Amino acid sequence: MPEDSNPILRWQRQDLPPTLSQRFEFDSYAETRRFLDGVAKLAEAAQHYPNLSFGKTYVSVTLDADGKKLTPDIVALAQKIDALATKAG
Amino acid sequence: MPEDSNPILRWQRQDLPPTLSQRFEFDSYAETRRFLDGVAKLAEAAQHYPNLSFGKTYVSVTLDADGKKLTPDIVALAQKIDALATKAG
Repeated sequence: MPEDSNPILRWQRQDLPPTLSQRFEFDSYAETRRFLDGVAKLAEAAQHYPNLSFGKTYVSVTLDADGKKLTPDIVALAQKIDALATKAG
Repeated sequence: MPEDSNPILRWQRQDLPPTLSQRFEFDSYAETRRFLDGVAKLAEAAQHYPNLSFGKTYVSVTLDADGKKLTPDIVALAQKIDALATKAG
């Protein structure tokens, strides 16, 4: 995949403490719920629980690493969440 | 019910813009999820969608009134969410 289409590039990276975050917007509450349920399944599979903020038509996801370095597993989880949003939106 | 056992008193009230907010803590991710699902059902029944922030074992709920005055319906929703947390916790 060419680098500029790599979905992970859309996430905001923060360094102290290391986090990846992204906001997703949806057209309806039903889509928002579908996305949230999908994120919950991914989180349980990865045993890594993001912090989520959401309202009727948006979800903000923040992945952290308990103050340690972001691992490839966390980046992979972000990419899976992106893929989910592409399907839901 | 005597005033000091009224669960709504535990919520933080903000006036500009008017919001009610409360943080709930849980012992496990399973309990957090059960609570979130319950809040979603209450929100759909009330057709009023709170802003929620959550992680593995906490949920923060903020109810707003689109910048207008908090209505009895919104206070009633807060009380129902409190009752749900009492059951889940």
